Amino acid sequence: MKYIKESFKGLKPYHSSLITDGIILNANESPYNPPKEIIDLFKKEIENVEFNRYPDMDERALCQAIADKFKINPNNVTIGVGSDELLDCVFRAVLNKGDEVIGFSPSFSMYKVFTELVGGKYIEIFGDDYLFNIDDLINGIKNNNPKLVLICSPNNPTGQYIAEADARRIIESTDALVLLDLAYIDFSDNDYSNIALDYDNVIVFRTFSKAMSLPSIRCGYAISRDFNIDMINSIKAPYSVTTMSQIMATIAIKNFDLYKDQIDLIKSERERLYNELNKLGFNCYKSQANFIFVTMDDKYNEVLLENKIYIRKFKSNIYRITVGSKDENNKLIEVLKCVKL
Amino acid sequence: MKYIKESFKGLKPYHSSLITDGIILNANESPYNPPKEIIDLFKKEIENVEFNRYPDMDERALCQAIADKFKINPNNVTIGVGSDELLDCVFRAVLNKGDEVIGFSPSFSMYKVFTELVGGKYIEIFGDDYLFNIDDLINGIKNNNPKLVLICSPNNPTGQYIAEADARRIIESTDALVLLDLAYIDFSDNDYSNIALDYDNVIVFRTFSKAMSLPSIRCGYAISRDFNIDMINSIKAPYSVTTMSQIMATIAIKNFDLYKDQIDLIKSERERLYNELNKLGFNCYKSQANFIFVTMDDKYNEVLLENKIYIRKFKSNIYRITVGSKDENNKLIEVLKCVKL
Repeated sequence: MKYIKESFKGLKPYHSSLITDGIILNANESPYNPPKEIIDLFKKEIENVEFNRYPDMDERALCQAIADKFKINPNNVTIGVGSDELLDCVFRAVLNKGDEVIGFSPSFSMYKVFTELVGGKYIEIFGDDYLFNIDDLINGIKNNNPKLVLICSPNNPTGQYIAEADARRIIESTDALVLLDLAYIDFSDNDYSNIALDYDNVIVFRTFSKAMSLPSIRCGYAISRDFNIDMINSIKAPYSVTTMSQIMATIAIKNFDLYKDQIDLIKSERERLYNELNKLGFNCYKSQANFIFVTMDDKYNEVLLENKIYIRKFKSNIYRITVGSKDENNKLIEVLKCVKL
Repeated sequence: MKYIKESFKGLKPYHSSLITDGIILNANESPYNPPKEIIDLFKKEIENVEFNRYPDMDERALCQAIADKFKINPNNVTIGVGSDELLDCVFRAVLNKGDEVIGFSPSFSMYKVFTELVGGKYIEIFGDDYLFNIDDLINGIKNNNPKLVLICSPNNPTGQYIAEADARRIIESTDALVLLDLAYIDFSDNDYSNIALDYDNVIVFRTFSKAMSLPSIRCGYAISRDFNIDMINSIKAPYSVTTMSQIMATIAIKNFDLYKDQIDLIKSERERLYNELNKLGFNCYKSQANFIFVTMDDKYNEVLLENKIYIRKFKSNIYRITVGSKDENNKLIEVLKCVKL
């Protein structure tokens, strides 16, 4: 890569294998397509799409639908190519080279990537046996000088839920901008997205990729006070969210109630899977997301792979398993039970 | 915007008005939806989409279809959210703060935006009465120290075609990386995208937004030697191009022949419009794109607006008019003929 700048020489192009066959429990995807009613509404809309026109760059209909759901103003919402694009915009907007970012570790790997792309320094606060302590983060903020604080609740990959009161404690402890990633919050007991509007220094990030079963459309949103939304919109590429993604996301959020059964099923399967994995003697972590963090011998994963069951390896003997359908979870447990160490 | 960094304080959130009524000739869009056969093929594919799965992050089927069209290897291709995302990746990958970029002016406005987002300096080479001289750019490269050279052919907004031989002269005059934006090349007489593979220092950018009538899907691609493609893929956000966009783009490029009639019609209408605008006494610039750059009194634009005909104003008395359908162009000419200065 002869033209890449010196500081990026270590970067490598990331590729992923395309798995089309087997049981895919490695990407925190829903095992279900969106409800048929939602797909049918979308297909009806497709008939009227002007493919030859650029998308609405201000995503008006979608911002309005999100604002309606949260009973807020559409000026407090912006849309991106997944919440990833919006997070990236904030990192670029706020950070100078050498600036610090702080968050629990392990967490969503892109936080560190975005920090390093702008030459920032990512400070990781580790938990005791992967369990995070809120005061450790608050002390970390005090003992450093972060420009950005990252909170992911429920946390990817550990599944730990940071409660609303704890999130508020962190936010109120600092003047730094707090990025509150609630990608998995619909699988928890309490959606507290609206706290974004109680403070100047919070941006909440949400996505259509998890509970709404739409990672294919690459669509996320941010909620915050208007000057933070303006900041993102100053950096964001114009017209990044496609017309079809805007249409599908608008239908999905307007009809969010239709997802209730799917979400309830994933939550009950998560509890069942947690119990079954515990019975097998693995060390499982309580999760309020659609996945379970687990320590188990690598031998188990080898056997899963032989059976075309794909889970996410974090490091030796540490895995994240996405909750699948009832059948998929049964197959997973059945195979794990057959493994002889 | 209290959290934005000092160097970005001048940025403003960009919004655009949503025009849904009238004759829209301001965004270089095709007046036609893609051919019905292409939309029908897409609708058939939609039935099998797993909306609940992330897109193929390596866009294998689409890269292969593009490689087939140009008779090149898929390793020499990468896909982005419009060519914009890919251009942005290159600017971020190559430029350090203070680095220089050079190109003709006026040209596609995002080149300057991308330069400034990474703290670079954009050097503009002006033409004599908007007509660019290749040697001026070559001298500009010699007298400065650019890391990136921008060529847009046919140039947006002037329509000037930079011929293959001239592009080669520029490329061979420098060791800097040359970004050759051929967004409108299908409206010209010669698609020379393949020169990308004759040099180490060229990346060609193409889009589905213009001749293929698909700005709604936000999809572009780059062609270059593998180490330049790797460089882009090292910076590019994973999974940025949606599943539906990949499907639609793959169908479109595999069936590119179906667009022939539309493209021929736009080209012949461009010549007719050029002649008519000339007859009206405007100073028009020869164009090999789907738009015409023209100097005319602002009064004309006022009357067009009253008639809900939207063209793009660059500055006082300077406009870019997208070639519309026959009816749209007739309406445009008819209204212009009625204007009394």
